[in-house]
Amino acid sequence: MSKLCIVGLGMIGGSLAGGLKQAGYQGEIVALVRSAATGERGMELGLIDQFSLDAADVVSDADIIMLAVPMLSMREQMQLIKQHLKPGAIVTDAGSVKTPFIKDARAVFGDLSRVVPGHPIAGREKTGVDAADANLYHNRRVLLTPVPETNAAATAEIQHLWEQAGAEVEILSPEQHDRVLAATSHLPHVLAFALVDTLATQQEAEEIFRYAAGGFRDFTRIASSDAIMWRDVCLTNRDAILEAMDNLDVHLKQLRQAIDAGDGAVIEATFLRARKARDANT
Amino acid sequence: MSKLCIVGLGMIGGSLAGGLKQAGYQGEIVALVRSAATGERGMELGLIDQFSLDAADVVSDADIIMLAVPMLSMREQMQLIKQHLKPGAIVTDAGSVKTPFIKDARAVFGDLSRVVPGHPIAGREKTGVDAADANLYHNRRVLLTPVPETNAAATAEIQHLWEQAGAEVEILSPEQHDRVLAATSHLPHVLAFALVDTLATQQEAEEIFRYAAGGFRDFTRIASSDAIMWRDVCLTNRDAILEAMDNLDVHLKQLRQAIDAGDGAVIEATFLRARKARDANT
Repeated sequence: MSKLCIVGLGMIGGSLAGGLKQAGYQGEIVALVRSAATGERGMELGLIDQFSLDAADVVSDADIIMLAVPMLSMREQMQLIKQHLKPGAIVTDAGSVKTPFIKDARAVFGDLSRVVPGHPIAGREKTGVDAADANLYHNRRVLLTPVPETNAAATAEIQHLWEQAGAEVEILSPEQHDRVLAATSHLPHVLAFALVDTLATQQEAEEIFRYAAGGFRDFTRIASSDAIMWRDVCLTNRDAILEAMDNLDVHLKQLRQAIDAGDGAVIEATFLRARKARDANT
Repeated sequence: MSKLCIVGLGMIGGSLAGGLKQAGYQGEIVALVRSAATGERGMELGLIDQFSLDAADVVSDADIIMLAVPMLSMREQMQLIKQHLKPGAIVTDAGSVKTPFIKDARAVFGDLSRVVPGHPIAGREKTGVDAADANLYHNRRVLLTPVPETNAAATAEIQHLWEQAGAEVEILSPEQHDRVLAATSHLPHVLAFALVDTLATQQEAEEIFRYAAGGFRDFTRIASSDAIMWRDVCLTNRDAILEAMDNLDVHLKQLRQAIDAGDGAVIEATFLRARKARDANT
């Protein structure tokens, strides 16, 4: 029987555990946690079979170790598990940025043949093990970004793991992943956080939130996301995010200029292009 | 029996008609439209009892005229209906910006005692009479912004009309309306349009949309909104929108600076503040 050890039993890791259990996963699922309360809650919810606060207990006979912690905790967790890994064990992750994960893994393990970087493109704004949802990854994409030295069988095994939880797996390069996700995920989160923070600090903040409609709630939903996780994304994918922010800034300045000048043709053309692009692609 | 004439039978006006019909509204509902196809579709859908392309046919015995057209079409429509209004008829609207509507109404009618400016805080991205939804205004806010000379009984009548369609009506000043809505509605729309347009014109546009997740789809849903309607909002609420854009720009620049400097404490504090504000207010 295979054994999966999830490091960090939050919404992301807990949802994978729940999805696997729901699908009748034949292996054992254990968790390395930092608080006993989280582990106990994971047991109560039927997500895991066992947990420990000590890597020696849960890592040493695990076939797959899934790191599901914020980006800046990855290296520390790798160092914690390193000495306990059994030969042939696969290390994978669910972090939002791939090139820094690979850098950390190289610094800790040296050899990356059994390291499969990954990222599920799914999430909830709620955090913690209680936000785990067995259906979270159903029909959602998981991106794996193996490096040239990554063992193909290891990648296939991680692909199979996610597919059991209902996900659709695709492979792309770590660099492309980080550029593309900066635009589609990291930038929108930064914008939503910035917008809500801007409005909250304005004079009429109370009225502003009072008269906010459904569009605003949809638009700012991601501003309820975990602050630590997204802080770490900003710190680890800095260059790509800055570039995405600057690209947007150019377009916003053009639109501001058109609004200021009362240039209806430019405003309309921009809005039409955006509407067409969104409707064609989502 | 009272008679309501809706000018412009799109998603906004059609939804009001549908909501009233569904609630057993006792009056007659007619529409002034620019194309017979729209009117016929409104009849088929059971939204209206009658329609015409000629104001003389449908306006002259109406008790309430609801202008549900884009902001920059308001004045022209007021000029069209003016000569046909019966004494005591109330003119109201569903436009997104209130001070320019009032300015237009004053220019056309002079006397505003029977003019009740209004704005339902609800909408769909889809447009046209086929997007009409009888439940659109259920438990949604409608803001009325009467001027000092507006007859109180006229305001009460329009309040009652919206309440029959399931809405919750509140009164505020036109100026406050336009400032608050610039922040909660107009700015998010401008941002969503600008973001999607930015991404669509990037090199990796195909991958960007391909790997976009649920958060992105929620965030950009409003970029599928009607381009003409939102162009008109930008042109008519220019100053408040520019101010809202500039306020956001200050905050975005601060956040950009913190990301560039790798200042995790500032990033985290911003995200936590935003999360707290959103969770407390929506």
